[in-house]
Amino acid sequence: MTIVLFTDFGGADPYVGQVKAALLECAPGVEIIDLLHDVPAFSVRSGAHLLDSLKSFFPAGSTFLAVVDPGVGGARDALALDADGRHYIGPDNGLLSVVAARSLVRRWWRVLWRPRALSASFHGRDLFAPVAGLIAAGALPPEAREEIAAPAIDFGAGDAAEIIYIDHYGNAWTGLRAAGAPRDAILLASGARISHARVFAEARPGFAFWYENGQGLVEIAQNQGSAARSLGLSVGDLVSWSA
Amino acid sequence: MTIVLFTDFGGADPYVGQVKAALLECAPGVEIIDLLHDVPAFSVRSGAHLLDSLKSFFPAGSTFLAVVDPGVGGARDALALDADGRHYIGPDNGLLSVVAARSLVRRWWRVLWRPRALSASFHGRDLFAPVAGLIAAGALPPEAREEIAAPAIDFGAGDAAEIIYIDHYGNAWTGLRAAGAPRDAILLASGARISHARVFAEARPGFAFWYENGQGLVEIAQNQGSAARSLGLSVGDLVSWSA
Amino acid sequence: MTIVLFTDFGGADPYVGQVKAALLECAPGVEIIDLLHDVPAFSVRSGAHLLDSLKSFFPAGSTFLAVVDPGVGGARDALALDADGRHYIGPDNGLLSVVAARSLVRRWWRVLWRPRALSASFHGRDLFAPVAGLIAAGALPPEAREEIAAPAIDFGAGDAAEIIYIDHYGNAWTGLRAAGAPRDAILLASGARISHARVFAEARPGFAFWYENGQGLVEIAQNQGSAARSLGLSVGDLVSWSA
Repeated sequence: MTIVLFTDFGGADPYVGQVKAALLECAPGVEIIDLLHDVPAFSVRSGAHLLDSLKSFFPAGSTFLAVVDPGVGGARDALALDADGRHYIGPDNGLLSVVAARSLVRRWWRVLWRPRALSASFHGRDLFAPVAGLIAAGALPPEAREEIAAPAIDFGAGDAAEIIYIDHYGNAWTGLRAAGAPRDAILLASGARISHARVFAEARPGFAFWYENGQGLVEIAQNQGSAARSLGLSVGDLVSWSA
Repeated sequence: MTIVLFTDFGGADPYVGQVKAALLECAPGVEIIDLLHDVPAFSVRSGAHLLDSLKSFFPAGSTFLAVVDPGVGGARDALALDADGRHYIGPDNGLLSVVAARSLVRRWWRVLWRPRALSASFHGRDLFAPVAGLIAAGALPPEAREEIAAPAIDFGAGDAAEIIYIDHYGNAWTGLRAAGAPRDAILLASGARISHARVFAEARPGFAFWYENGQGLVEIAQNQGSAARSLGLSVGDLVSWSA
Repeated sequence: MTIVLFTDFGGADPYVGQVKAALLECAPGVEIIDLLHDVPAFSVRSGAHLLDSLKSFFPAGSTFLAVVDPGVGGARDALALDADGRHYIGPDNGLLSVVAARSLVRRWWRVLWRPRALSASFHGRDLFAPVAGLIAAGALPPEAREEIAAPAIDFGAGDAAEIIYIDHYGNAWTGLRAAGAPRDAILLASGARISHARVFAEARPGFAFWYENGQGLVEIAQNQGSAARSLGLSVGDLVSWSA
């Protein structure tokens, strides 16, 4: 029984600790893993592709608490998703939709459960965390959710031909899945033409290369340097394969 | 049995891990929650108001290890506080005093317990953590502390009319409690006049607003932007209500 | 049974969470402590000295997963080390060698175990974490490793007369052990002559001083300020005692 946290709450701010207290109240002793608290702020689409690339490293039965929610306090619904044996909780703004679109088996629910006290701005703590805890504990009452056919916002199953994340080394993740990409393909990003290398140790020092990262995505990197800084890359920048 | 960490040790530095090893030695299997490790450095007063705003999200019986301690190695005492059903450990520099001043029931102790080896600079690991672990485990011997009437430094129960924290979104927490503030009040900060909005989704894009944040404090924010950057806000800046 | 994480994976990136999932799969319920995920990037030598300074704060029987691995995907071996009652897993690039060189009792193994799927770039998750989990769980089969006399890369037992870490306060750790240093010695760094102070509270505000930090190393600090910024210090800068 594991709860995986995937948010833009920031790892350094006093938000995640409050979420954990709420989780532990509903699911005492549950294992909590911080996967990512720095989803690019307000970038739901990047988050949706990141979440899909990371899900498979967590065991069947895991519950993902996924909150990137610039519309908190507005009218969007809270959703629960079961997809290929894992559980997901999050807002209806597309964040869970790429995972769902690429799953073989999926069921969607609108969450009806509400806490006694719901702040206007922190549904991660007040609403999503208790629901995730109850689901992880197998204690969510049936009337707490109603099944729906599809979410309101759906980004679909396609790749995102853009930078979706830049890590602290300066490596830039794209939303392109690497599985089908020929190793002699040239990636275009920020005006540069980028060739493939299998691993960092094989790349020419000082030159950016692309490779299949540990999450199966096309990533732009540089041996012992920051590709993002060298090439001036930012989250949201478009990328494409050279024709 | 939960221990909540509230420090300025920095989440990225190799200090918190040493504190956790010390806690687990005294209280094996205890649940540890990282609440905040980036209390504004050296800013004990901000820390005191932050801690008070966050305490109530943790269950009765929780033990808070609270260390913001620029005077480490000097003469200040180590304190234990029981307040409204929660335990607190920290230095006698005011850090615990706002919690105490706003509690219905409180008891103060001076900590007499000392470790076999006490470094000059890391009492968080060597002194406060073992004491917190022993308290959480219900194993602190009575002679390890003596009751006192009051701490040496006491900030009192009043609000702090200043910025006490800026989060990674750029939202600026003030030390003003929002409960009594009329929704048509105008907040003055950094030369700007700031109006109320209930939630981010209701605010005009690009305009700062104030609202009651999820911790009950008046916070200055901006829809999908950084209020701190837009207004040039820093921790310690004074704020006030317009007359 | 504790696993201690010591890496350059970055605390904010989605890498550590994947490592933890891999650890928990091999060692369910194991206690995991994040010691440091910001070892200066690509700086194996700094990491080796940091690891040695931190090991003794964790109990006998602890397993350290130590990964700073710019050569991932190249030919370097994976190593296991038992040293003075603690276990270490990491790449054969010197990272474990200072710990070993300063230990009274040590045994080295080359790790032969390989996962079914090994990514080219994330051996921390795919190789080192499962091995650490199996060792912590006492479940590593004997044929998974073969004993060797010594690692390929060995930095030896000597001090590192350089800056090995700068923390978020701006304090600069050197790789010099403080035990033998006379308190009237003058440390030279970045063109400055730096005197000793016992604790922060005793130092003249605005002046850098050196002291024995909580890990037994000579550290350059400043009372309520950033010594690294004041003196322009960076990781790798050389330091020396004045003749």
